[in-house]
Amino acid sequence: MNYDTIWNDILKIRERAPLIHNITNYVVMHSTANALLAIGASPVMAHAIEEVEEMVVHSNALVLNIGTLSKSWIDAMFKAAYVANAKNIPIVVDPVGAGATKLRTETIKMLLEDFRITILRGNASEIKSICYESHRTKGVDSIATSEEVIDFAKEISGKYDLTVTVSGSVDIIMKNNRMMKVHNGNPMMSRVTGMGCIATAITGAFAAVNNDYFIAASEAMATVGIAGEIAAQKSSGSGSLEINFLDALFNLNLNDIAERLKIEIYEKEI
Amino acid sequence: MNYDTIWNDILKIRERAPLIHNITNYVVMHSTANALLAIGASPVMAHAIEEVEEMVVHSNALVLNIGTLSKSWIDAMFKAAYVANAKNIPIVVDPVGAGATKLRTETIKMLLEDFRITILRGNASEIKSICYESHRTKGVDSIATSEEVIDFAKEISGKYDLTVTVSGSVDIIMKNNRMMKVHNGNPMMSRVTGMGCIATAITGAFAAVNNDYFIAASEAMATVGIAGEIAAQKSSGSGSLEINFLDALFNLNLNDIAERLKIEIYEKEI
Amino acid sequence: MNYDTIWNDILKIRERAPLIHNITNYVVMHSTANALLAIGASPVMAHAIEEVEEMVVHSNALVLNIGTLSKSWIDAMFKAAYVANAKNIPIVVDPVGAGATKLRTETIKMLLEDFRITILRGNASEIKSICYESHRTKGVDSIATSEEVIDFAKEISGKYDLTVTVSGSVDIIMKNNRMMKVHNGNPMMSRVTGMGCIATAITGAFAAVNNDYFIAASEAMATVGIAGEIAAQKSSGSGSLEINFLDALFNLNLNDIAERLKIEIYEKEI
Repeated sequence: MNYDTIWNDILKIRERAPLIHNITNYVVMHSTANALLAIGASPVMAHAIEEVEEMVVHSNALVLNIGTLSKSWIDAMFKAAYVANAKNIPIVVDPVGAGATKLRTETIKMLLEDFRITILRGNASEIKSICYESHRTKGVDSIATSEEVIDFAKEISGKYDLTVTVSGSVDIIMKNNRMMKVHNGNPMMSRVTGMGCIATAITGAFAAVNNDYFIAASEAMATVGIAGEIAAQKSSGSGSLEINFLDALFNLNLNDIAERLKIEIYEKEI
Repeated sequence: MNYDTIWNDILKIRERAPLIHNITNYVVMHSTANALLAIGASPVMAHAIEEVEEMVVHSNALVLNIGTLSKSWIDAMFKAAYVANAKNIPIVVDPVGAGATKLRTETIKMLLEDFRITILRGNASEIKSICYESHRTKGVDSIATSEEVIDFAKEISGKYDLTVTVSGSVDIIMKNNRMMKVHNGNPMMSRVTGMGCIATAITGAFAAVNNDYFIAASEAMATVGIAGEIAAQKSSGSGSLEINFLDALFNLNLNDIAERLKIEIYEKEI
Repeated sequence: MNYDTIWNDILKIRERAPLIHNITNYVVMHSTANALLAIGASPVMAHAIEEVEEMVVHSNALVLNIGTLSKSWIDAMFKAAYVANAKNIPIVVDPVGAGATKLRTETIKMLLEDFRITILRGNASEIKSICYESHRTKGVDSIATSEEVIDFAKEISGKYDLTVTVSGSVDIIMKNNRMMKVHNGNPMMSRVTGMGCIATAITGAFAAVNNDYFIAASEAMATVGIAGEIAAQKSSGSGSLEINFLDALFNLNLNDIAERLKIEIYEKEI
């Protein structure tokens, strides 16, 4: 992966406008739809048990996000995941607030154990809680990424055979013995609600055009981080950051990516 | 209809602040409320079956939008529509994603067949799917408006005796043998989620002050298109477009409308 | 209370990042989360009856907002309020649209009568409707604050032993025989959806760091008003006002507060 492969996948997203089906939380529905539109994808939000099957079948990726969860949404997620697995449509899961309540922790466990999840993207606290249920998340905020986190990501990736993205000041992307560190991004991004959820949705867009899902997950984090950096330079606060972030995604070009990309690749397989 | 009649109706909206009751999708609740406030109307969102009747009774227009549908919301829409019909309150319907799933297509059919709907506003794909159920919508995106679309609009308008607005690069407004083409707007608007839903809500605001609903629907599309043009000139991407659009609606004046209005009227009745 | 005490409490919010649990309406979830993040608090939104107890226990304040109400949300609010009372966590209630429907008016009555509510923040129309059920709210808009309103606030404050905030062109904060008038703010704020809901959420953030809740409520209204003034100076409409408001909250400093604070204190107890 380098700036050229990222750029090629962005061009594919813009050309194909893949349909990304989101069953996501109320707080971020508007901003994730806008982020997907800004990068060139086609978002659809649908959660009724009566229609999720038809919607998933025509999608190029399914994004499941457990913020503002309730029973009927869990049922819809499970049905959508079942159909996506049957049709080999990639599934990206965001474990928002995992560890904070049993409902969230158990929903994530069931998604991971009963379905083939393609990519799991959360912050360190959420990913840790999936390993150690006793660990308690403080709300939906992220804690600093550490070497310890790499062990958690490796454990989950191995156990469920999926790509794990742990976002933080440095993003860790892990698939078995492949690891990527993405150093892009800006601290102000954590002051905008749903930037993590947006990263998850954008991961869905890349997974829709690149079936090396470890690479797709890494490209998504680099893209979101770079757009965040560009936006932060123009922003005088968290309000304008959210708007400038969408503009940056909308206008992203090869030069931006080539100049700003900061990654470390650890691939034993290459 | 000309710039003067549009401006007079905008002034009426600003003076009367009509109450627009929206039963709409989660993705656009915030942005449609803001658009209604920007033009001078009073938005209210209420969907509980226990309270929709009381809310509708005091409203000047009812807006029903079927994105992110579920059973309880359908029940609330039907009850609200029943009350609105009994009280002669205009009903504007947005068939978001009609054609994509049976749930959405059937809900629209029931709304059109069981109630007197005043204005139906959708994109070409959605309007087409109401004529031909076999046609399948790709998510919630619009396809280009064509002469074929005029036939669909005419068919639905005649069958249900309502005004049909088909939005696209050129908006078609149809009521029996009256037709309006609105050439205002900017392509970047399709990269902001819910701009169609906003057009529907703004249609509700005009319907609340002008009971020639064909004209009200046309004025709404012209107003939204003009605000979008003004916004696009100041915007560097889809993020800032959404914000500048609200500012443009907020500041709209007679000169803007007079200079920018681009319509074609085909009225056999005049 | 003066600019110094406000500033000290803002610093506490920034340092402690108190967890504010919101059970709030769909329209404002995104913007209230962003406002809480901008001032330095940690928002969490959770409404499922299965998880509200666990979420409240770890929160520093609970915010209940009855816009877009439904039965399952009422159940969740009651359970959350029960736990918050048991754990002495402050509860801030926003009676959005009270008076407009029985569902809303009765829900507010039950919250006030069955639980110890800490702060009630609404507009004049909503507060009035809690005193006189026959009074009918026009949607969710505010009416002008008057001396009459002071009587309503005093009545409710005394009856339920809580702090009442009546927002308007002048905000009235009342607790028994203590009263504060806050003259900060800008009329354009009423053209952005959810600014009142944001004031309620920010009240939760101050209540989390200052257990003189009359002062916490007053500081919140002054802070929101000052941020609104700063934003209005930079804004060309209601769209940019919302964004600039978040930036202003994010960047608020001692000088802004010292220069702009306009309050009148009536404290017999001091």
